[in-house]
Amino acid sequence: MSLLDELAAACGVQHVLTEGDLSAYEVDWRRRWHGKALAVVRPGSTAEVAATVRACAAHRVAVVPQGGNTGLVGGGVPDPSGTQVLLSLQRMNRVRGIDEANLSLTAEAGCVLQSLQEVAAARGLLLPLSLAAQGSCCIGGNLATNAGGTQVLRWGNARDLCLGLEVVTPQGDVWAGLSGLRKDNTGYDLRHLFIGSEGTLGVITAATLKLAPLPAATTTALAACASLHDAVALLSRARARLGAGLTGFEVMGRVALDLVAQHFPALPRLLPDAVWTVLLEHSDTEGIEAARARFEALLANALEAGCVQDAVVAESLAQSQALWHLRESIPLAQAQDGLNIKHDISLPVSAIPEFVHHTDAALRQHFPGVRLVNFGHLGDGNLHYNVQAPPGAPPHDFLAAHEHAVNTLVFDAVAAHGGSFSAEHGIGALKRDELAARKSPVALAMMRGIKAALDPLNIMNPGRVL
Amino acid sequence: MSLLDELAAACGVQHVLTEGDLSAYEVDWRRRWHGKALAVVRPGSTAEVAATVRACAAHRVAVVPQGGNTGLVGGGVPDPSGTQVLLSLQRMNRVRGIDEANLSLTAEAGCVLQSLQEVAAARGLLLPLSLAAQGSCCIGGNLATNAGGTQVLRWGNARDLCLGLEVVTPQGDVWAGLSGLRKDNTGYDLRHLFIGSEGTLGVITAATLKLAPLPAATTTALAACASLHDAVALLSRARARLGAGLTGFEVMGRVALDLVAQHFPALPRLLPDAVWTVLLEHSDTEGIEAARARFEALLANALEAGCVQDAVVAESLAQSQALWHLRESIPLAQAQDGLNIKHDISLPVSAIPEFVHHTDAALRQHFPGVRLVNFGHLGDGNLHYNVQAPPGAPPHDFLAAHEHAVNTLVFDAVAAHGGSFSAEHGIGALKRDELAARKSPVALAMMRGIKAALDPLNIMNPGRVL
Repeated sequence: MSLLDELAAACGVQHVLTEGDLSAYEVDWRRRWHGKALAVVRPGSTAEVAATVRACAAHRVAVVPQGGNTGLVGGGVPDPSGTQVLLSLQRMNRVRGIDEANLSLTAEAGCVLQSLQEVAAARGLLLPLSLAAQGSCCIGGNLATNAGGTQVLRWGNARDLCLGLEVVTPQGDVWAGLSGLRKDNTGYDLRHLFIGSEGTLGVITAATLKLAPLPAATTTALAACASLHDAVALLSRARARLGAGLTGFEVMGRVALDLVAQHFPALPRLLPDAVWTVLLEHSDTEGIEAARARFEALLANALEAGCVQDAVVAESLAQSQALWHLRESIPLAQAQDGLNIKHDISLPVSAIPEFVHHTDAALRQHFPGVRLVNFGHLGDGNLHYNVQAPPGAPPHDFLAAHEHAVNTLVFDAVAAHGGSFSAEHGIGALKRDELAARKSPVALAMMRGIKAALDPLNIMNPGRVL
Repeated sequence: MSLLDELAAACGVQHVLTEGDLSAYEVDWRRRWHGKALAVVRPGSTAEVAATVRACAAHRVAVVPQGGNTGLVGGGVPDPSGTQVLLSLQRMNRVRGIDEANLSLTAEAGCVLQSLQEVAAARGLLLPLSLAAQGSCCIGGNLATNAGGTQVLRWGNARDLCLGLEVVTPQGDVWAGLSGLRKDNTGYDLRHLFIGSEGTLGVITAATLKLAPLPAATTTALAACASLHDAVALLSRARARLGAGLTGFEVMGRVALDLVAQHFPALPRLLPDAVWTVLLEHSDTEGIEAARARFEALLANALEAGCVQDAVVAESLAQSQALWHLRESIPLAQAQDGLNIKHDISLPVSAIPEFVHHTDAALRQHFPGVRLVNFGHLGDGNLHYNVQAPPGAPPHDFLAAHEHAVNTLVFDAVAAHGGSFSAEHGIGALKRDELAARKSPVALAMMRGIKAALDPLNIMNPGRVL
């Protein structure tokens, strides 16, 4: 039997797509990768995923798993060869169960993140993973890429929220590793190996996730800081005074907010003189008055100490949402302005002021007029340190001429300051060469050994990560 | 050159021990394993560890890494053959650095846990890992075994506190994976693979750990619950009202506290009628009055709802310590009473009442008169569900006759309720057969593939885990 016939037998002929417009599966959402699949297969169950992988393994055909296709590094679309099977998990979108006393939820890989947040919220519970793509990204992809987002400061990355996994191996076996356990020291932690492996070791088909009680009150504030040193000092104060109540600490540089003002002039500019604007979020199990009082005490203390120059506390939920909207508008304003060079880097928080000082100067020297759109999750040491062409310069020409040199300068500086060139977006196809060049040979040898041991035919998402 | 000569050249002849009383290294602290080493080697640096492992690999000699030798499953002592090298990390006990703004600390594997807690506390910071052996266990062993303890409810297991590792591989290479980063998605997560692998994949020589601000106030309470159902209901209430402020939730059965009263009659019995006694700990960044007020509101609410029958809130730090002392006296009282069968199991919290009801009855039926000493970290779903010989029965005889049957009954029940037969103590030599029998063949095949890929000579702690 041909592979396509086997796939049709496994999943139903209507779920093996080979004709028509398949760009929703073959092109990534930033439209930087234009692939061509041998077929798009949409299995509806774990058994169908396993049968799909077994058939592909028998025919030595590569499998590219895909969730919501919202990745930023070309890890979830097929290459242009027309030889790879695109395995979409979108039909596997059942919530298998919710255990309120255990604070856990089990869901299939194709569940959209926001739909799971809503399922939890309907029980008064919080699924604490939140990112810009949450309306279309899928939980399987979130785990396969170890997604980050805005709640990492309090709750950790996607891996920190995962209690167990169900995975189809490269042989088409099913590892039934779903679990609601907080503690399980029975052998090597396979869960953490699959999380963040970007589909190169197997296909995540379902996961058990941690939940938490919904906070009784959440408040937001903006603070103006004169320098990143002051922003880091504010972070230390906020952590000491709010503890786990500090659930967000985002930083926005002036150029980033200038870009928002330029492209979305209707949005208010609340602290127009700020060199650095910090968005703080405080969540509490007590009521809103107590939460706001703690917040105001923190900010008054920081003003007095001089690490904050001005501050605004949201007076309502609508105001809180408006402050977050400002932060979320930065990538949209960047997109309006044209293609740019995105850097998703992380550093020890203590190293960020010196890194930015050094790297800003070096970029300005080598690429005169360049705009440094710097914002991100300062509480996690994660900056989206993006480089936009000089005003008026055609973005595509700028990228064609300078993207490689800009990356080299930035990633060299990141390495010199003890940081990572991929904090939350992963490696995919985009940063595979960087990984090979920048990761230690000892680490790479171990990764390649693991890949060869688990996927000796190299059929799982080949050409990504390693 | 002979292996012993090579080891002496690598580490200094005075740090290669082959004579005299080596029982501190060769016998585990429960005195259940009596090994015999070819030599005890005490390297003083990462380079010396690497040279030691290279020499052993060249001679095809097994290496057994050891920290404080406080493990409970025979994973850190040599076998009796006299052919294995015991590699003690105790001389590697330097704190390499502390980064207050980044809330991280880098320490060598041989640092005693309590000494690191003290280093952090001197800066006003908390290293949130705490367990009974903290005065002698080492951080390298804590990570190699993914230690648990009393603060997992709030802070997670040892793996959740680790940002980066330095590891000597089975080839004697050094993986320089120390890192202060909260986010780093550059390839497979080797850190989580080494954590919990019990020295079978390499030797952890140093680690970077997360710190947190010290809480401003910590208070403790005891609550009497009529059933485990009520204790689980109290847990849900405490989580919702205290959020991350709930830093401890331990349960103690009546038989466990009876045993404490019997062997330590001077200790007060605060809630003598309690069927189940819960120890709650609440930590807050606010002052002690606010913390105690929140605690009292929670307990009043729980009393009114009927899930608590009586409660005592500690009025002072000394009273808090006395309540914890009661909890910590249970294993000591058990040891006084004689050898017993320890079960370190975990379950979904929601499954605990039914599991205990079912398993208590089955054990009482099959082993009349048996005493079920049940206590543990209920907030994590982790019970130390220990079985003590009937009163007056010689413990060694009871264990010789019944240990295997008791284990089979308990572990079968654990599996039927979705639990794990090793929550925090690991596998070592003790539970290797259980792992082989109870873990899924798919998971075992992946673990064995990883072991063979990273340690093809099988020299790292052979006979443990797999």
